[in-house]
Amino acid sequence: MKVGIVGASGYVGGEVLRLLLSHPKVEVSMVTSRQHVGKFLYKAQPSLRSFTDLKFSELDYEKMSDNCDMVFTAVPHGTATEIVKALYDRGMKIIDLSADYRLHNPEDYGKWYGWEHPHPDYLEKSVFGIPELHRKEIKKSQLVSCPGCMAVTSILALNPLIKNNLIDEEHIVVDSKIGSSGAGAGAGTAHAMRAGVIRPYKPAKHRHTGEIEQELSQTAGRKIKVSMSPHAVDVVRGILCTNHTFLKKDIDEKELWKIYRAEYNEERFIRLIRDKDGLHKFPDPKFLVGSNFCDIGFDIDKDNNRLIALSASDNLMKGAAGSAIQNMNIMAGFDEVEGIMYSPLTPV
Amino acid sequence: MKVGIVGASGYVGGEVLRLLLSHPKVEVSMVTSRQHVGKFLYKAQPSLRSFTDLKFSELDYEKMSDNCDMVFTAVPHGTATEIVKALYDRGMKIIDLSADYRLHNPEDYGKWYGWEHPHPDYLEKSVFGIPELHRKEIKKSQLVSCPGCMAVTSILALNPLIKNNLIDEEHIVVDSKIGSSGAGAGAGTAHAMRAGVIRPYKPAKHRHTGEIEQELSQTAGRKIKVSMSPHAVDVVRGILCTNHTFLKKDIDEKELWKIYRAEYNEERFIRLIRDKDGLHKFPDPKFLVGSNFCDIGFDIDKDNNRLIALSASDNLMKGAAGSAIQNMNIMAGFDEVEGIMYSPLTPV
Amino acid sequence: MKVGIVGASGYVGGEVLRLLLSHPKVEVSMVTSRQHVGKFLYKAQPSLRSFTDLKFSELDYEKMSDNCDMVFTAVPHGTATEIVKALYDRGMKIIDLSADYRLHNPEDYGKWYGWEHPHPDYLEKSVFGIPELHRKEIKKSQLVSCPGCMAVTSILALNPLIKNNLIDEEHIVVDSKIGSSGAGAGAGTAHAMRAGVIRPYKPAKHRHTGEIEQELSQTAGRKIKVSMSPHAVDVVRGILCTNHTFLKKDIDEKELWKIYRAEYNEERFIRLIRDKDGLHKFPDPKFLVGSNFCDIGFDIDKDNNRLIALSASDNLMKGAAGSAIQNMNIMAGFDEVEGIMYSPLTPV
Amino acid sequence: MKVGIVGASGYVGGEVLRLLLSHPKVEVSMVTSRQHVGKFLYKAQPSLRSFTDLKFSELDYEKMSDNCDMVFTAVPHGTATEIVKALYDRGMKIIDLSADYRLHNPEDYGKWYGWEHPHPDYLEKSVFGIPELHRKEIKKSQLVSCPGCMAVTSILALNPLIKNNLIDEEHIVVDSKIGSSGAGAGAGTAHAMRAGVIRPYKPAKHRHTGEIEQELSQTAGRKIKVSMSPHAVDVVRGILCTNHTFLKKDIDEKELWKIYRAEYNEERFIRLIRDKDGLHKFPDPKFLVGSNFCDIGFDIDKDNNRLIALSASDNLMKGAAGSAIQNMNIMAGFDEVEGIMYSPLTPV
Repeated sequence: MKVGIVGASGYVGGEVLRLLLSHPKVEVSMVTSRQHVGKFLYKAQPSLRSFTDLKFSELDYEKMSDNCDMVFTAVPHGTATEIVKALYDRGMKIIDLSADYRLHNPEDYGKWYGWEHPHPDYLEKSVFGIPELHRKEIKKSQLVSCPGCMAVTSILALNPLIKNNLIDEEHIVVDSKIGSSGAGAGAGTAHAMRAGVIRPYKPAKHRHTGEIEQELSQTAGRKIKVSMSPHAVDVVRGILCTNHTFLKKDIDEKELWKIYRAEYNEERFIRLIRDKDGLHKFPDPKFLVGSNFCDIGFDIDKDNNRLIALSASDNLMKGAAGSAIQNMNIMAGFDEVEGIMYSPLTPV
Repeated sequence: MKVGIVGASGYVGGEVLRLLLSHPKVEVSMVTSRQHVGKFLYKAQPSLRSFTDLKFSELDYEKMSDNCDMVFTAVPHGTATEIVKALYDRGMKIIDLSADYRLHNPEDYGKWYGWEHPHPDYLEKSVFGIPELHRKEIKKSQLVSCPGCMAVTSILALNPLIKNNLIDEEHIVVDSKIGSSGAGAGAGTAHAMRAGVIRPYKPAKHRHTGEIEQELSQTAGRKIKVSMSPHAVDVVRGILCTNHTFLKKDIDEKELWKIYRAEYNEERFIRLIRDKDGLHKFPDPKFLVGSNFCDIGFDIDKDNNRLIALSASDNLMKGAAGSAIQNMNIMAGFDEVEGIMYSPLTPV
Repeated sequence: MKVGIVGASGYVGGEVLRLLLSHPKVEVSMVTSRQHVGKFLYKAQPSLRSFTDLKFSELDYEKMSDNCDMVFTAVPHGTATEIVKALYDRGMKIIDLSADYRLHNPEDYGKWYGWEHPHPDYLEKSVFGIPELHRKEIKKSQLVSCPGCMAVTSILALNPLIKNNLIDEEHIVVDSKIGSSGAGAGAGTAHAMRAGVIRPYKPAKHRHTGEIEQELSQTAGRKIKVSMSPHAVDVVRGILCTNHTFLKKDIDEKELWKIYRAEYNEERFIRLIRDKDGLHKFPDPKFLVGSNFCDIGFDIDKDNNRLIALSASDNLMKGAAGSAIQNMNIMAGFDEVEGIMYSPLTPV
Repeated sequence: MKVGIVGASGYVGGEVLRLLLSHPKVEVSMVTSRQHVGKFLYKAQPSLRSFTDLKFSELDYEKMSDNCDMVFTAVPHGTATEIVKALYDRGMKIIDLSADYRLHNPEDYGKWYGWEHPHPDYLEKSVFGIPELHRKEIKKSQLVSCPGCMAVTSILALNPLIKNNLIDEEHIVVDSKIGSSGAGAGAGTAHAMRAGVIRPYKPAKHRHTGEIEQELSQTAGRKIKVSMSPHAVDVVRGILCTNHTFLKKDIDEKELWKIYRAEYNEERFIRLIRDKDGLHKFPDPKFLVGSNFCDIGFDIDKDNNRLIALSASDNLMKGAAGSAIQNMNIMAGFDEVEGIMYSPLTPV
């Protein structure tokens, strides 16, 4: 299958390429970047040197539809609205990595992004790209919108709790910690000011909240509100979501394991983590670098009736490029794990 | 004033020494360490080379009471019970940096530490060493027990909210992030396994919870329960507490500022942080390294009626040695900021 | 092919396993660890959870020769002498990752390691495992000894210079920088004391010097001495060798490129790096994490007639496990890149 | 004494301010920054919040000479040429932290910086600001130019060797490792691309080479050439210079210690480091953060007749702001250590 990548010079585009260039069923036929037209891909993505002789080309929809069976769009939020529509109208299959087609309700773009969506009628054409929740729709879809990295990590931990009606829906606190690659290649803080931070940003009203609420509400069949606060910490890759919830009723560890197992037993990219000793008692993105897993675990704080659901991922993999290719595999009818079943690098 | 340090080879003991060796009113007359008896202090504390020719001696209570007006005990939890008692019985003034005399209720040692306190009648002799809460008692006390690093950081943010009866007391979630020096010199994980972690540890029932509950309950006049979960992140020094709370009634930012200002206006080691732009909109321990400040800020999440109270500190300073010397200054009648009013190092 | 790993609980053993568990031609049939007998492999290697159900077994030579076609030994230096001999005597093919069979001259063990080799007659049976230098011998060998991580990285940059008689052999300065995983799982410094270091260790007489001298001397046909000084820096994976040399005669950049290209053009794990702009002008292990490449580049300092040959690698890959499997592929007659041709993770 | 700082919004300006605001004999009367005129200083320097209510003003030479007894200029290289001259012509005492008045020979600006110095006749008015070398001249000078951070660190290790004619002058290799704050506040690489690097930059012809050669040549009384190569590593603050030299004659450790002691015994900001065990056998900037020390040590590689002279510093302290204030103290007749004798923070 021939695929193209629009916006191939950023971190997410680079990760999509890293995976696709080794994917047994895919040929990367086209990469675009406004900044780098005509240059070798490896100039912007030094790690890919010796893996490809591709050069960046301009975004030419005509050529793209001639040369590509499927397209990944990895451009900044707000920039994808037109590109995705143009590709869609040409009948192409698209996997969008921006936020521009994640929210189904047009009003949510006003609320979370502060702008009006120019093509609200296209929002319903898009499937929210979490295979563990929407595999069937993804399979049939022409347009899949990959979730935000913190959103998918949190949703995968919380969704079984909502589905099983276990938790107080008024007090769902998602405390997220994320590495610097999450900011994207164009938006990073200089090392001297970013190293060593434990920096809250947008403690209220972070945009990913909208996606989490959308998905959990859909599961619940009623409006669920989420209290999310992200923090920048000193790693490059990695997300930990500490999902603090309060139990509606008494439930013990065993029952909870059963619920999670029932939900995820067949899922090849979800691992349930709980050890009694060692350094890996709970999910930790340290042990996920380079892999497409979302690790999930939990602890129960009986004194407070609190259930702490912990979920971790590599924000460029399960949080972006890995999920994108998982979606591609589903859309193309390949084995879902093809080209993305890597074990994490440890230690790194 | 002559002071001694029992347990001067660890991180906290080292930080106490760093500060005392430059303190204008103090002479360090004695340092002990079982491991290092007879060696130069700077062998175990390489940063202090050229600042002192002290050698480690054995813990000899007789000599200590002859040579010291005040003693800091910086030994591991559980080890201080006897040492502090022995010094106390000799009539010495003591500033204890372990957890052994922090909790007033003997039963709490069973609950949080899993052992019975051998000298429960001494617990009431000890004042909990947060000057911002207990300055008067500290001034008169013979024994001050310095708070846990995460505890003091969290308490300082939460106490005004409890005092003013602003928050739902059933849903106080303290999500803490802490650096590796918090583990102490004897207990650290090797760099390759610790670098890059975002590792939950004790998501339920962390020991510092007991101290937070003790202090907030005392303020409230009724039992307050706290849901605390700490996380190890990749810094050496620094704590951020994200205190997620839910407001009992509508209150806007201005009113909250007034409440915090009323509480802390006279406090020289508390800074209220809120900027509209830049990299320091909220408290971040990155900008506190080497200083004794606790920075406090907040954000309001109206959608969820949530108040996120953020507090940050250097765990070896305000979280340990800095607080200890602040307490010493008060006990000795010195200016409270003497020898500890340093601006943070930035960038570091 | 069935392979066993002796000493599978360390960093190098873990990396060998990570690679072998995805290798298309290999089945891991046995893993041993004295500490962990009977436990699941993933308990000690958390990243491998869901990739294998193997358990650690005892080191039983009988079972090993029944169950394995080839064995990797990844035990601490000094421990491998007997194990390797025992396996060798059973006629097994061995890839040793310790230093115990690297040096051909028995006296060198006295000089660099301070002990006498118990089986000096076995040293000549071992081939030094750098395929780029000894591919033919490796192919025929029963025992391959993988080079030290800093040694191989330095040798690959220096060997063409020696071979072409370009540099002053009296002043070869190798200044190496290495991450914390190089110390091994059993020997690391705690994070708080290791983070942020730029720490010289063994500025004179580091053990890897012996290997570099052995290999360069063999190439030169005369004794070559090397001045090596390693430094610990704050990364987990990665080595940079700055090989400072002085040119015997005038030579320009183009000619040097020709020489390096002639040497390495066919080598699939060596990349020559030199860009005029961007962040990847010269080799940097940042852009090699998880890959088996050794990146080589250089700069000429005309004022001083100095040639700075730069080489970088991932110390657990080309510096250990990656090289080991490259050697295995050669010994087994597989494609040399099978199971190890991964692009680096970036950013990480 | 009243002092002003021109260019107070960068890292060096911030560090000068941190120190001066606690300096017992100094009042900061004026700070300028083109970008921030009218804003509170702490907006750009968040660590200084609560230490000053100063606001940034424009650079008005008239007001500056009315309000300041001495001025620090901490503006980018190339920008200081005119500012320093204008202040000098008004008769003011200046401590310049740029490179613009470091080199005495006007031709060196062409060689190392690629531009012609507009005021070559002012170069001789400037004293190179290393007190350990030029204390007397500094005392009498109107203009002191502070050395480059890597230059001063290297010079202090090498100067005694040159002075005592110990080393082969044709093969002086300075391999430097430096943190990200050295790039300045305006020039940093984003964290995701800077974290974890071991990145060579300018392996040949780095600008600081010119300063080292100037100073060593002056000591030697003949032209000395230096082979310097800097590397970016993952710390924020800190420099290690590994000065590889080759001994002209046999000399043992004791004699070398004597030479270094003779040179630096009276110097309060130089410490000689050599331990037989522990983590601080050799200089390491990890143990210098926040202090004005230059730590010096060495090792002898007898096999190669090599002397490895190691020197470490905090690049913002001894490498910039600390040295600047040391110079100020000398110029003003204060005790040389006033306001800068801090012990390093450890661990950090």
